[in-house]
Amino acid sequence: MARAFKKFLPMFDRVLVERFAPELKTKGGIMIPEKAQGKILEATVVAIGNGARIQSGEVVPVSVKVGDKVLLPEYGGTKVTLEEKEYFLFRDGDILGKFES
Amino acid sequence: MARAFKKFLPMFDRVLVERFAPELKTKGGIMIPEKAQGKILEATVVAIGNGARIQSGEVVPVSVKVGDKVLLPEYGGTKVTLEEKEYFLFRDGDILGKFES
Amino acid sequence: MARAFKKFLPMFDRVLVERFAPELKTKGGIMIPEKAQGKILEATVVAIGNGARIQSGEVVPVSVKVGDKVLLPEYGGTKVTLEEKEYFLFRDGDILGKFES
Amino acid sequence: MARAFKKFLPMFDRVLVERFAPELKTKGGIMIPEKAQGKILEATVVAIGNGARIQSGEVVPVSVKVGDKVLLPEYGGTKVTLEEKEYFLFRDGDILGKFES
Amino acid sequence: MARAFKKFLPMFDRVLVERFAPELKTKGGIMIPEKAQGKILEATVVAIGNGARIQSGEVVPVSVKVGDKVLLPEYGGTKVTLEEKEYFLFRDGDILGKFES
Amino acid sequence: MARAFKKFLPMFDRVLVERFAPELKTKGGIMIPEKAQGKILEATVVAIGNGARIQSGEVVPVSVKVGDKVLLPEYGGTKVTLEEKEYFLFRDGDILGKFES
Amino acid sequence: MARAFKKFLPMFDRVLVERFAPELKTKGGIMIPEKAQGKILEATVVAIGNGARIQSGEVVPVSVKVGDKVLLPEYGGTKVTLEEKEYFLFRDGDILGKFES
Repeated sequence: MARAFKKFLPMFDRVLVERFAPELKTKGGIMIPEKAQGKILEATVVAIGNGARIQSGEVVPVSVKVGDKVLLPEYGGTKVTLEEKEYFLFRDGDILGKFES
Repeated sequence: MARAFKKFLPMFDRVLVERFAPELKTKGGIMIPEKAQGKILEATVVAIGNGARIQSGEVVPVSVKVGDKVLLPEYGGTKVTLEEKEYFLFRDGDILGKFES
Repeated sequence: MARAFKKFLPMFDRVLVERFAPELKTKGGIMIPEKAQGKILEATVVAIGNGARIQSGEVVPVSVKVGDKVLLPEYGGTKVTLEEKEYFLFRDGDILGKFES
Repeated sequence: MARAFKKFLPMFDRVLVERFAPELKTKGGIMIPEKAQGKILEATVVAIGNGARIQSGEVVPVSVKVGDKVLLPEYGGTKVTLEEKEYFLFRDGDILGKFES
Repeated sequence: MARAFKKFLPMFDRVLVERFAPELKTKGGIMIPEKAQGKILEATVVAIGNGARIQSGEVVPVSVKVGDKVLLPEYGGTKVTLEEKEYFLFRDGDILGKFES
Repeated sequence: MARAFKKFLPMFDRVLVERFAPELKTKGGIMIPEKAQGKILEATVVAIGNGARIQSGEVVPVSVKVGDKVLLPEYGGTKVTLEEKEYFLFRDGDILGKFES
Repeated sequence: MARAFKKFLPMFDRVLVERFAPELKTKGGIMIPEKAQGKILEATVVAIGNGARIQSGEVVPVSVKVGDKVLLPEYGGTKVTLEEKEYFLFRDGDILGKFES
């Protein structure tokens, strides 16, 4: 997997994330059917762009780093398939927040 | 609850708020059915972002602080669920005002 | 009422106004039914924000002050209920004009 | 009438105008029915705002002055009733031109 | 006609033009019925504004002068009637080009 | 034809082009019916404007010159008829590319 | 093919790409019918523009170079046919990312 992230560089302020795996069981241990598994909004940053240029001409670095756990908006983002695995590209400014460890 | 706010950092000019609990009884002590409970627009700020960058390149800090009591607009905001509790993210500029104590 | 205005601070360039009471009688003394009472567009400013930041980074103070009598646009504004009384929030730039005394 | 204009100050780049009275007779002296009287687009400026702030932070004064005869666009403007008389507010930039005497 | 142009001053970057008269006959001398006369897009500039202020605060003069023969876009422009004659106002930037003599 | 180009000056960043003549025969020499002749996207620049003013106040010259062979977008552009010949006006920024010889 | 790229220069921040050839067989060697061949989003950069001018007046070079392997968005881009071969033009900012070798 590390290989994939070394090989793909998002452009500008784009951030490549991998969504967390869905929870397959309830806390009580009961299997959750796929339809009842909500959309996963937590994700791990796996690659970041070099930042976008703002109107002043300055390039602003993205505000997350590889490995950050982030909260995604419910809509938006672009699905990309790299080495048969599903990732998502979000603009840095569309990421809602990050979870500190 | 404090733990949740330590762990989630909203991005840019986003503000995480927790709405006040709905009033369950009238002043006269009569139970208010859930349907008759209006949308709660008062909320407490529980986490704030580091501010958004404006066109001049400057990062503008958000104008509310954790603990502030604020008035929310009737529409807008993004519901986020953190540790099974419901919060809302609003852009700093969409918050209508704050209540001074 | 003064207490309410001390306690609520509009954000940025928002202005809290209280509309004038509707006229209940004609000049000739005849009662005006509620339906025939036009929308009240005159209002008194009861609280103002600290001003909005423009693109140059500068914060521009609002152009009305508490106590000003203003003319509101027919549409727009946000109704807010503070201490069971109805007020309206308008952006400074949406207020049409003020009445000098 | 002068009293009204002393008392109402349009905000920012707004201009208060009074439309010319409609022509009630043809040049030949025949009465023109109200329906056939076209929309009056000529108006007299009766009050002006202090100007609007542009992005550079500078306040730009309006480009007409009280007493100017102006040509209004066919659509737009906000009707305001001051002391039971009908006026119109236009943004300075929406006024098409002025008539020099 | 000169009198009309002296008396009306377009505002900002507006340009007052008079469309060329439609061609009433073919080159072969046959009358062209009114319906078959195409929309006249050639016009003469009869009055110009003082220019529009751009974001930097600078006032940019219009790029045509009185007497210029210009090509108008097929749509847009505002018809104005001055002294019972029909003119059109266009923004300087909407004029497609000018014919050099 | 040269006369036409000397006489018409496009405004600002507009570029006057003449589309290439459609190919009337296949390489094998078979006539192509008019309906099957695709839209011609290659064109020759025949006149250019003096450039458009950007927000900084600077006038940016157009990036093509008279005689350049260019690729046009499939949609857009304004048809203009000069001396009974058909040309098209495009904004400099809408031209897709140029062919180097 | 090299000849084509020498001859066509995209304008501004446009990037000319050639999509990868579709995979015609599965890894197991089975032919993939054309309908089942997904849209090819990987492409090779074959020509780049000189960059776009931003509001500050500065020209920003494109961020990919000829030969780069890039990931395209699923929608957008302009198909261009050069010497009977199909290419696509994308704005530099619309390219999702590049693959490092």
